[in-house]
Amino acid sequence: MKSYRKELWFETRTRRQLINITPEVETCLRESGITEGLVLCNAMHITASVFINDDEPGLHSDYETWLETLAPEKPYSRYNHNTYEDNADAHLKRTVMGREVVVAVTEGKLDFGPWERIFYGEFDGKRRKRVLVKIIGD
Amino acid sequence: MKSYRKELWFETRTRRQLINITPEVETCLRESGITEGLVLCNAMHITASVFINDDEPGLHSDYETWLETLAPEKPYSRYNHNTYEDNADAHLKRTVMGREVVVAVTEGKLDFGPWERIFYGEFDGKRRKRVLVKIIGD
Amino acid sequence: MKSYRKELWFETRTRRQLINITPEVETCLRESGITEGLVLCNAMHITASVFINDDEPGLHSDYETWLETLAPEKPYSRYNHNTYEDNADAHLKRTVMGREVVVAVTEGKLDFGPWERIFYGEFDGKRRKRVLVKIIGD
Repeated sequence: MKSYRKELWFETRTRRQLINITPEVETCLRESGITEGLVLCNAMHITASVFINDDEPGLHSDYETWLETLAPEKPYSRYNHNTYEDNADAHLKRTVMGREVVVAVTEGKLDFGPWERIFYGEFDGKRRKRVLVKIIGD
Repeated sequence: MKSYRKELWFETRTRRQLINITPEVETCLRESGITEGLVLCNAMHITASVFINDDEPGLHSDYETWLETLAPEKPYSRYNHNTYEDNADAHLKRTVMGREVVVAVTEGKLDFGPWERIFYGEFDGKRRKRVLVKIIGD
Repeated sequence: MKSYRKELWFETRTRRQLINITPEVETCLRESGITEGLVLCNAMHITASVFINDDEPGLHSDYETWLETLAPEKPYSRYNHNTYEDNADAHLKRTVMGREVVVAVTEGKLDFGPWERIFYGEFDGKRRKRVLVKIIGD
């Protein structure tokens, strides 16, 4: 069994941002030389997400509105977590969006349906944060 | 390491439906000949879900009501994604329910607790869509 | 490829509780002797969750409040599932929090960011329930 590991680093200019990282994960897969197996791709921070959905700006603005409805950023005082922090909402938003994806590798490629794309979801940005790409297989 | 891949196809009559696919996944596992490893089972479409929960009709109707509360289908105009589409709610419902499950394989069986069953969750149906079953192990 | 399996058992005193199980999973990893691979850690019950987030009491009380807003426990009659049961809310809360996590194993350790911790999320406790730890790799 082969294994491969890489960290992808991000620093967004805004508190929240969705970034299509599919090309970076495809590069990792090529570097790994693995043709059959599984890719794990996870946020290494607990206020960020890795998820799979559509690369469509309208949907991304719907995510922003929807997540703010489910877990509003403000007032910061609504959350007990926000004593020295102001990012409780980011922990909850990431919970909705998920920490990780596992993707099949078949014949050296990400085994995706037609519109599947991998995103980094940042919910407490403006600082350097990481995604882990781990690939195992043959 | 062995690997196995199969697509399961679905075409629901209604926009939303939950289908117990545990028997199909068990058939895949038997076909694979793998006795120790992991099964990845994921929706290949971004308006559908694969998740694990109870095969109980009351709970399934609760899911329908609950998901409509969290991410209502209508009015379609409430979502920016719905310009040429009407399925933004399906993207959000699938986000809540999750894209995929990873299940342990032990002694040739899905290593499940007493009530765990795998479901295909369709949120924008009435057309042919797929689930991927990928199994790796020995 | 090596594989390892262990069940972790819990019986909480209260209906809902979050328990940091990172030390137990690290013990499993040491016992497995696996240095490169993947850990799957999942609730074996459909009213409980395994998830990764911060070990911070304020955040945990925010989770309690937030999940009660998204899927209230009472009145029990609001859910069709609650005929012989009273735990429909626990199925929905677990859906939000997720069934499982997959964690990379690198050089014999859980490959975690600085604040990642694994939690057992109990939403219908006061009885014995299980988490599965399955590790595959070399």
